[in-house]
Amino acid sequence: MEKNSLYEALEKVRKVNPLVHNITNVVVTNFTANGLLALGASPVMAYAAEEVADMAKIASSLVLNIGTLNPQTVESMIIAGKAANETTVPVIFDPVGAGATSYRTETAQRIMSEVKVSVIRGNAAEIANVIGEKWEIKGVDAGTTANGDTVTLAIKAAQTWNCVVVITGKEDVVSDGETTYLVCNGHPIMTKVTGMGCLLTSVIGAFAGVEKDLIQATLSALTFYEIAAENAAAQTAEMGPGSFQIEFLNQLALVSSDDITSHASFTKVNR
Amino acid sequence: MEKNSLYEALEKVRKVNPLVHNITNVVVTNFTANGLLALGASPVMAYAAEEVADMAKIASSLVLNIGTLNPQTVESMIIAGKAANETTVPVIFDPVGAGATSYRTETAQRIMSEVKVSVIRGNAAEIANVIGEKWEIKGVDAGTTANGDTVTLAIKAAQTWNCVVVITGKEDVVSDGETTYLVCNGHPIMTKVTGMGCLLTSVIGAFAGVEKDLIQATLSALTFYEIAAENAAAQTAEMGPGSFQIEFLNQLALVSSDDITSHASFTKVNR
Amino acid sequence: MEKNSLYEALEKVRKVNPLVHNITNVVVTNFTANGLLALGASPVMAYAAEEVADMAKIASSLVLNIGTLNPQTVESMIIAGKAANETTVPVIFDPVGAGATSYRTETAQRIMSEVKVSVIRGNAAEIANVIGEKWEIKGVDAGTTANGDTVTLAIKAAQTWNCVVVITGKEDVVSDGETTYLVCNGHPIMTKVTGMGCLLTSVIGAFAGVEKDLIQATLSALTFYEIAAENAAAQTAEMGPGSFQIEFLNQLALVSSDDITSHASFTKVNR
Repeated sequence: MEKNSLYEALEKVRKVNPLVHNITNVVVTNFTANGLLALGASPVMAYAAEEVADMAKIASSLVLNIGTLNPQTVESMIIAGKAANETTVPVIFDPVGAGATSYRTETAQRIMSEVKVSVIRGNAAEIANVIGEKWEIKGVDAGTTANGDTVTLAIKAAQTWNCVVVITGKEDVVSDGETTYLVCNGHPIMTKVTGMGCLLTSVIGAFAGVEKDLIQATLSALTFYEIAAENAAAQTAEMGPGSFQIEFLNQLALVSSDDITSHASFTKVNR
Repeated sequence: MEKNSLYEALEKVRKVNPLVHNITNVVVTNFTANGLLALGASPVMAYAAEEVADMAKIASSLVLNIGTLNPQTVESMIIAGKAANETTVPVIFDPVGAGATSYRTETAQRIMSEVKVSVIRGNAAEIANVIGEKWEIKGVDAGTTANGDTVTLAIKAAQTWNCVVVITGKEDVVSDGETTYLVCNGHPIMTKVTGMGCLLTSVIGAFAGVEKDLIQATLSALTFYEIAAENAAAQTAEMGPGSFQIEFLNQLALVSSDDITSHASFTKVNR
Repeated sequence: MEKNSLYEALEKVRKVNPLVHNITNVVVTNFTANGLLALGASPVMAYAAEEVADMAKIASSLVLNIGTLNPQTVESMIIAGKAANETTVPVIFDPVGAGATSYRTETAQRIMSEVKVSVIRGNAAEIANVIGEKWEIKGVDAGTTANGDTVTLAIKAAQTWNCVVVITGKEDVVSDGETTYLVCNGHPIMTKVTGMGCLLTSVIGAFAGVEKDLIQATLSALTFYEIAAENAAAQTAEMGPGSFQIEFLNQLALVSSDDITSHASFTKVNR
């Protein structure tokens, strides 16, 4: 993939303002909505079984996130996911905390089996647990020690589910099972702000809402997002995570095509 | 209305610290509470059917917001609204996303028919859909092209419901069906922060909790709020929406009577 | 207690990154998670009856907060609390708004009777109402006039419940019924940011997750937290509550052992 094509999806998002329907957790709703607005997307949160199918059908993409799941919201996710599938609205899924409790693991697996997901994003432990491998997880954070090879995991998961898999961590892996990329952008302070992963998943939703090539949409979203974090960290990392969080929202609005062309750091994996 | 009378309500809010009971959406709860605290009001969020009547009765005003509605919360809104009506606590209603799904439209209409609402605030599409006209809406954001005359819409809605109607947009309209004002304060970056409309509705609640003249309370709240946004934008708009959001909270605490007298921009509409 | 021992618990938190399971209200979830991350703890929010026992058992501490309680969440709190009790995970309880409605008062009393709570933190009105005294409360904020002697109240409550009681206000009281401390750190602007009390309760949870001496854990958490607020206020109080909130998150990451040794202000009460 050429670096120039990375920012085309960003420009489309800023021009089209895609409507991103989020069924997400109560910790990150505000941050997610503000991040999507800053980027140029149009967020909507709707959770009730009475309306999620209607909302998903008019959206550019649907984002499902089980960070604070409960039986009612899970039913709404299934209903919305099926409605999105009927109208070819891409579904992006964030299996927050899969592996931490059996309820999360089983719910994530149920969503993957009942809904056709276009992109799934998680840390290594979450992705591993959803495909049935037991990797260490601490609450909703990945274990600090790698339990295995994340590239192999991403390829296996992508082939199993026939979708794009994004595993984020110190390095990030994007794979559709055939083509695989490693992304090396980002900054360690991202782990000190809640919802940085959840918002990334919604940002992938925004990009997938305007760009049909899902590998390109995902890689564009990921490099854009992590370059915004790098810019924000350059200005604020020493001030602390509060200042970083606010500057990161600023940077989602400010990151330019030039920033992406000059700072995007990714390589194609040969396997 | 004289400009001098605009800040009297603000001074009352800061002196009395009215208790504002919010039944609002999960996206904006934190921002709403912080905005009300910054202004000098005392926010409380209470949602359970088991307690909303008790809380509404001891509040200075009740704010209902259907941004992430579900059947349980809607029942609580009806219960709280009726309790507020019994004790003449003013009810302020924000029909977020009415028109986007039939569930939202029907719920908004149900609340307007079962609860005596003092002030309703929405964008043009939301207000139009609640009175049964079909205006374009995109998720929870108003369509970018005006579908009609918002002054006529506000007057018609106010006469239909016998309440104060506030339609916010590039210009804002405030009408009780007889007297109508246009307000020209505010700043475009307000659309880049989630919950700016929702918090405005709660701020109207704070003002209506201390000022019985609802046109004066609403016009005071609106000019105060948008001047705070202008002040914040003057300092931060080029930095981005993250910095604006924080400075806006600061300005809710800092806007003075002088700011209001010198910057309030409104005209009475002759019809 | 020696000042030197105060920061030992802080250093343990930053080294161990305890997993703090929060069942808290929808207003403060984001702020709580960000505050715990800034401090060095690892927050997780999980609410569903289907998973709270599993999550509580793997956590270092469990924090229960009834700020926006409903029957489902209360059941989850009881289930999680009993699971924590079985595995000797300390339970920290914040009876937000007890006294404002009978539902809140009764629920707080039910939790105190069905779960073995290690530390309870509230304002004077909340603690008084949970033990059955009627103190004035305004929504979720303590009345501005003291209704009685908070030291006597804290000692009585600690003896009644056989746990550590923390009453926060202009001065703070920490008591286990035998040993009692007064803490004089903090800053008035703390009352202008929502969730400052709720986050403190969760921070006590983080400290109690690494330090078994609950008086030391609580006193360490309280002085650390309020010194962070003092530092933030010194830089931002004149700018407004928005800037304070962000700088406070920064300070949770930045406060040093030296800050604590030089600024901690507490006295043992002789009774």
